[in-house]
Amino acid sequence: MGHATTDFPHQETIRFTSQDRDGLYKTIFNRRDVRGQFRPDSIPDEVLSRVLYAAHHAPSVGFMQPWDFMLIRDAGVRQQVKGLFDKAHDEAAEMFPEEKQDTYRSLKLEGILESPLNICITCDRSRTGPTVIGRTHIPEMDVYSSVCAVQNLWLAARAEGLGIGWVSIMDPEKLQDVLGIPRDIVPVAYLCIGYVDHFYKRPELESAGWLPRAPLESLLHFDQWGNRDTEGQESITEAIASQADFPHQSF
Amino acid sequence: MGHATTDFPHQETIRFTSQDRDGLYKTIFNRRDVRGQFRPDSIPDEVLSRVLYAAHHAPSVGFMQPWDFMLIRDAGVRQQVKGLFDKAHDEAAEMFPEEKQDTYRSLKLEGILESPLNICITCDRSRTGPTVIGRTHIPEMDVYSSVCAVQNLWLAARAEGLGIGWVSIMDPEKLQDVLGIPRDIVPVAYLCIGYVDHFYKRPELESAGWLPRAPLESLLHFDQWGNRDTEGQESITEAIASQADFPHQSF
Repeated sequence: MGHATTDFPHQETIRFTSQDRDGLYKTIFNRRDVRGQFRPDSIPDEVLSRVLYAAHHAPSVGFMQPWDFMLIRDAGVRQQVKGLFDKAHDEAAEMFPEEKQDTYRSLKLEGILESPLNICITCDRSRTGPTVIGRTHIPEMDVYSSVCAVQNLWLAARAEGLGIGWVSIMDPEKLQDVLGIPRDIVPVAYLCIGYVDHFYKRPELESAGWLPRAPLESLLHFDQWGNRDTEGQESITEAIASQADFPHQSF
Repeated sequence: MGHATTDFPHQETIRFTSQDRDGLYKTIFNRRDVRGQFRPDSIPDEVLSRVLYAAHHAPSVGFMQPWDFMLIRDAGVRQQVKGLFDKAHDEAAEMFPEEKQDTYRSLKLEGILESPLNICITCDRSRTGPTVIGRTHIPEMDVYSSVCAVQNLWLAARAEGLGIGWVSIMDPEKLQDVLGIPRDIVPVAYLCIGYVDHFYKRPELESAGWLPRAPLESLLHFDQWGNRDTEGQESITEAIASQADFPHQSF
């Protein structure tokens, strides 16, 4: 997405303070996937505009901005989406080992009807024409751009005190039918958004003992996949270990 | 990813101030895709740890945390990656209409060798076993999780004064070969990261007149795809129009 010329206006005057960074990190480390604590209060337009602008300023391959934002408030439409979830949720339960099925069924995994607003973020793969800078060798880049918009929206929502839950347990083609989305537009994310009674301190699946948080240092590789040899890399490994509680200690 | 029980610790004491929100929005609206202004200065370990922690705290489907982080400093490895880019870049130029090929070739699209560090973020689709909560009906959800980690890392980097450029013009299988990544691990994003001389005020492709920023209100649909009827939705449309310069006025 770059350009060889360098005569564009710079941002030179923009400096980030430690307060700015704290605001960002606080948001990142306290963002949660919310399903169960939605309040019915509507979201003020100014607040909703800000989180949508945040989404719209995600990076996009070749600046194609392939996203659209469907705002879904209609109770009948949401009831239909909830029906898609219910069906898929039943199907999903059967896919787990028998001893896990009861636990799976007890999980609260969506807030489609309780939240005051649902948002579907899509990807229009033909926007700006067939050849896109940066998408020539990795065709999924456009969908990845829409995912970046999802994450921007999620973070902005958290900082505004809004919870978001991403509902992925449904048949995407049936969702297209319910929302009237053409077959060639990808429904990337179906989100429930609203104010919440509270946020959990940690991800619910972590608190529930379903899976632990992986130690960050176990996810590092140096120059080649599988190279965990820290020779010459001790310092970054130590820095990570010494900040192991960084996300939770700071706020 | 939720759970029916509600006896997990809450975040009740965490309040977001307007300063916190400003820090987040400032980061979101000033993040750029950087290719040409890298300085060779190395990144302090504490700073690099923080941006990696931010990535590691992205949302992930079923809390599978499918990402790995490959830190690539070796000049020989990076030279090989640059070779993959050069080849793909030549192939890509041929795909554009003839009148656009010269412009395309003049674009600076990567900083693989100039930046002090490259990071490859991957997705291990088999992590935590074959059946993952939330991935049963949309198998791409795991890759989307890794993309969320990319976006978290990108924002944290910006707030730390670091530029990031996402290099997507290369053959992913050849990248797997160069980095020793197994075939079943998806190399989601190849990133160049480092301090920069300056950031541009707007995306380079926007400044260069390649494509304009789409008006946000043109991307909204109400309840059904293509429903632009703002009856009953005037207020959100007006709020968005009145904040059209929000991202640029605020900072």
